Amino acid sequence: MLSDPTFNTCASLVTGGHLPRVWSLLVTVFGDMAQDPGTRIAGTTLQDLMGLIGIKPEATRVALHRLRKDGWIDSTRRGRTSQYGLTPQGHAESAKASPRIYGPALAPGKVWLLLANPGTSVVAQENWLRLGGQCYIAPDCPGGTDLLCVPLDKDAPLPGWVRAALIPDWLRDQSAELFRRLCAVQTALGDRPALTSLEIAALRVLIVHEWRRIALKTPPLPETFFPAGWEGPRCRAAVTDLLKRLPAQIIALPAEADTA
Amino acid sequence: MLSDPTFNTCASLVTGGHLPRVWSLLVTVFGDMAQDPGTRIAGTTLQDLMGLIGIKPEATRVALHRLRKDGWIDSTRRGRTSQYGLTPQGHAESAKASPRIYGPALAPGKVWLLLANPGTSVVAQENWLRLGGQCYIAPDCPGGTDLLCVPLDKDAPLPGWVRAALIPDWLRDQSAELFRRLCAVQTALGDRPALTSLEIAALRVLIVHEWRRIALKTPPLPETFFPAGWEGPRCRAAVTDLLKRLPAQIIALPAEADTA
Repeated sequence: MLSDPTFNTCASLVTGGHLPRVWSLLVTVFGDMAQDPGTRIAGTTLQDLMGLIGIKPEATRVALHRLRKDGWIDSTRRGRTSQYGLTPQGHAESAKASPRIYGPALAPGKVWLLLANPGTSVVAQENWLRLGGQCYIAPDCPGGTDLLCVPLDKDAPLPGWVRAALIPDWLRDQSAELFRRLCAVQTALGDRPALTSLEIAALRVLIVHEWRRIALKTPPLPETFFPAGWEGPRCRAAVTDLLKRLPAQIIALPAEADTA
Repeated sequence: MLSDPTFNTCASLVTGGHLPRVWSLLVTVFGDMAQDPGTRIAGTTLQDLMGLIGIKPEATRVALHRLRKDGWIDSTRRGRTSQYGLTPQGHAESAKASPRIYGPALAPGKVWLLLANPGTSVVAQENWLRLGGQCYIAPDCPGGTDLLCVPLDKDAPLPGWVRAALIPDWLRDQSAELFRRLCAVQTALGDRPALTSLEIAALRVLIVHEWRRIALKTPPLPETFFPAGWEGPRCRAAVTDLLKRLPAQIIALPAEADTA
């Protein structure tokens, strides 16, 4: 499929020329386009979209198969084509991730330093960040445990090694690299891009996908805790700006289509 | 030397019938009686005092020799007897310990949780209490380090294992045992004990000595941090009361005696 040079330029600026893993990109596609309950996407549309990005049909088929096997999506036949949608599990996971990807930065009310009894083994919760030994930073203080919970002041100075434990160097570097790319896309895209619906959808998906990989690795902690050089907030702002310029396209089949 | 039954009763109540180590008891004697600069105690007086407590002359001589070798005390000859006094080093150490033994409980303005970078080895300061890993409770936050310093609320609830890390079980038990003994002494002593100066001095020394072993092991932290059953504050109050009833006796030679 021939496409507008603006699209190709922007697409390779976003990805840095490296195609994402196909199943992971499809998770972004369903999260961006099919979170409304009952919404399904035709297999042909998915193939067009992925093809535009540069993914081969066979790779898309394999990835769709994998996501069905994992219980993330299911498929129904409709005449000659299949239609794909999120399962309840896939929907729940997407809905859980969405605020961290699309929303403003999380600003927890309180942040805690947790210290577990060194004589016992503690099962760290998913949102605890280990600082060393049995010491963690966490967005809440679990009750009914024998953890020492000490509130952290959001504006207290933190030593560099703590900041680096929250945002490791590779994640900080990824944020700087993505910010650089997003700025380039902002410039290349212009204010009134002459793009097809499918091109707009594909660019959205690529932008959300690159940002998702950083956003979901960002701990739900105050930005004041993060190291110098961390560009998470500026990436978030650039993503928000770009998604406004690339509004969501109706390439999914809305729920009503099933009953038409 | 025959002595009043009140003295013998009180002395064995304080010690629980176990004589303290002689050199350590002498450290208490010099700290209690010879901290004024230039004050010296005659060897004969020391022998009388220690003899009253039940220490043999040879044991006192050996302990005095050890303390001289350690640089804690020195001796000068005066006619037929030796006179002993604190060296500058012995004086400095005694003066440092005195507020914790004789003064009110220390109440630091702030208390800190310190966490050292797990990638580095940290040299813990004398007044840091290790909670596990590289985590400490400390009465101050040292500047110019890469420690994470978090202030602790004095009235925040602490889990039992933290309290036990600050006051170990054996120290808590010692405090309860000493409190029991001090109560018994308070009863046995009465309000107007008919005791000689030397007996009063000896009882003072025994009381201060038993309390010193606990007081100097008590971390300089708020009492609210310590475990249930800890009797440090009540020991301190009983010691203060008893020392008032057993006022310091002039059995040392004051500084003026040298120039007389």
